[in-house]
Amino acid sequence: MDSFAAQVVRLAIESIAKDGGPFAALIVKDGAVIATGTNEVTRNTDPTAHAEIVAIRKACRALGSFQLSGCDVYSSCEPCPMCLGALFWARPARIFFVATRDDAAAAGFDDSLIYHQIELPYAQRSIPMIHIRDPHASLPFEEWLRKPDRIEY
Amino acid sequence: MDSFAAQVVRLAIESIAKDGGPFAALIVKDGAVIATGTNEVTRNTDPTAHAEIVAIRKACRALGSFQLSGCDVYSSCEPCPMCLGALFWARPARIFFVATRDDAAAAGFDDSLIYHQIELPYAQRSIPMIHIRDPHASLPFEEWLRKPDRIEY
Repeated sequence: MDSFAAQVVRLAIESIAKDGGPFAALIVKDGAVIATGTNEVTRNTDPTAHAEIVAIRKACRALGSFQLSGCDVYSSCEPCPMCLGALFWARPARIFFVATRDDAAAAGFDDSLIYHQIELPYAQRSIPMIHIRDPHASLPFEEWLRKPDRIEY
Repeated sequence: MDSFAAQVVRLAIESIAKDGGPFAALIVKDGAVIATGTNEVTRNTDPTAHAEIVAIRKACRALGSFQLSGCDVYSSCEPCPMCLGALFWARPARIFFVATRDDAAAAGFDDSLIYHQIELPYAQRSIPMIHIRDPHASLPFEEWLRKPDRIEY
């Protein structure tokens, strides 16, 4: 049986033949793969359908939970900022990755660029980000904190 | 007619009563709202179902495109790193937000924590990230670059 790293690299290669991007992810719990994901951005016209996002959603459906407690994630490539953020929200135990953001950049993907953009002040980013100051800005949070049966996540 | 900022704040408040998180997003094209999203993390047991991700997916389905070219995004709160990454992949024209990551943190949300984690070296992160060095790491990218009809995204 191949290692999880070998499996996820093979899945990333297989994704290309299915008109997906060259990326894959596995979610492993108690030594078994509980979900896989490959990049479906262009096939599903969904810019959020990266391998890790697809795998996280499938694993959470399988577990009936919005948390990946005790799970390991294997990614064929270092997660981009979107996927890294998703992983921090899903809270697995560990994240393993094979290729790096620089390998992805060399193949024409924006992972490294987006990491760089996140570090910049708003005014210097390639997509302008504008803070609208509004007296009601915090109303949703005030209402949330008043809800006694809120489910924190 | 309310401003888009007022509309998105109201939608975030309405989300709470529907067992969603206190967040909303609008996608606007040519002056009209083409998609809305609210936070569905706990309702759909999906940690990736933040308002912006939900709205991006709906807007891309509506447009039949994996890009939000020429669109403006209004978010009730500064996008978290996951949503910011998703927005950089979707490439709208501009991003407007009302509350800030600090407002979100004060209400118990991890947005600010995750921004901080992304800046740390792997070894210092709260979820360990492990780079598996593998001689086949770049094979998916080599295969991708050999595919003549690849759709870049």
